Amino acid sequence: MDCVFCAIVAGDAPASRVYDDERVLGFMDLHPATPGHLLVIPKRHASDLAGLDPEDGAHMFRVAHRLAAAVRASSLEPEGMNLFLADGEVAGQEVFHAHLHVLPRRTGDGFRVQAEFASPEREELERHAADIKTAFDAAQ
Amino acid sequence: MDCVFCAIVAGDAPASRVYDDERVLGFMDLHPATPGHLLVIPKRHASDLAGLDPEDGAHMFRVAHRLAAAVRASSLEPEGMNLFLADGEVAGQEVFHAHLHVLPRRTGDGFRVQAEFASPEREELERHAADIKTAFDAAQ
Repeated sequence: MDCVFCAIVAGDAPASRVYDDERVLGFMDLHPATPGHLLVIPKRHASDLAGLDPEDGAHMFRVAHRLAAAVRASSLEPEGMNLFLADGEVAGQEVFHAHLHVLPRRTGDGFRVQAEFASPEREELERHAADIKTAFDAAQ
Repeated sequence: MDCVFCAIVAGDAPASRVYDDERVLGFMDLHPATPGHLLVIPKRHASDLAGLDPEDGAHMFRVAHRLAAAVRASSLEPEGMNLFLADGEVAGQEVFHAHLHVLPRRTGDGFRVQAEFASPEREELERHAADIKTAFDAAQ
């Protein structure tokens, strides 16, 4: 296993840590998109959402939420925050150990989300909702 | 209070619902960035992360995680997923009732994140970590 985040959890790779408990670890991203950019990861290895323990996921968010408040209150003084998770290469995932980005935002910080927003008919939305519900119910 | 998401929770505004429990609601985004784009919101109004109940937040993620798996397993067949939350106007927040985006991804889907990634010295990362930890500890 050559997982850099597992190496950080084990203390075998350096990281600028901000938070540590039994389930998750929070540390500064080595290549920040904006100053103060940090990551929250589960200590137990999970390469993606499919492998992530549900309670590790919920706690990852709980801690990201608290850390976002801390970044807001810190001398970094951001104007906004994004929380972001990429699951799969096409979604921008680069390290295959699940992680939640906590991203301080400021006017003109160079971070931008581009998308082509659609306005589908209600029938299409209902069809997609039904498709997702079917898959959701099948998994219970 | 003119909150469109509160109106959806109350049943006074239409939505293509996919998930409903005591704490959160999941429904199709009216202006999807990609097909299958959905939102998970707390039922209790919170305009932003600062007002969001921590356990509502954790559960919002727990449900988004389950719904992401359902979208993956559905006939929509995405290749990846993003989870995204915008806190504040500068971060792209448009509806001021906290919401977590569940965004199916496919090659060439027009969704793109642009950023200028930095490679700061370890000292700068350590300084930011210390600033955030100070604010974190002060909030406990």
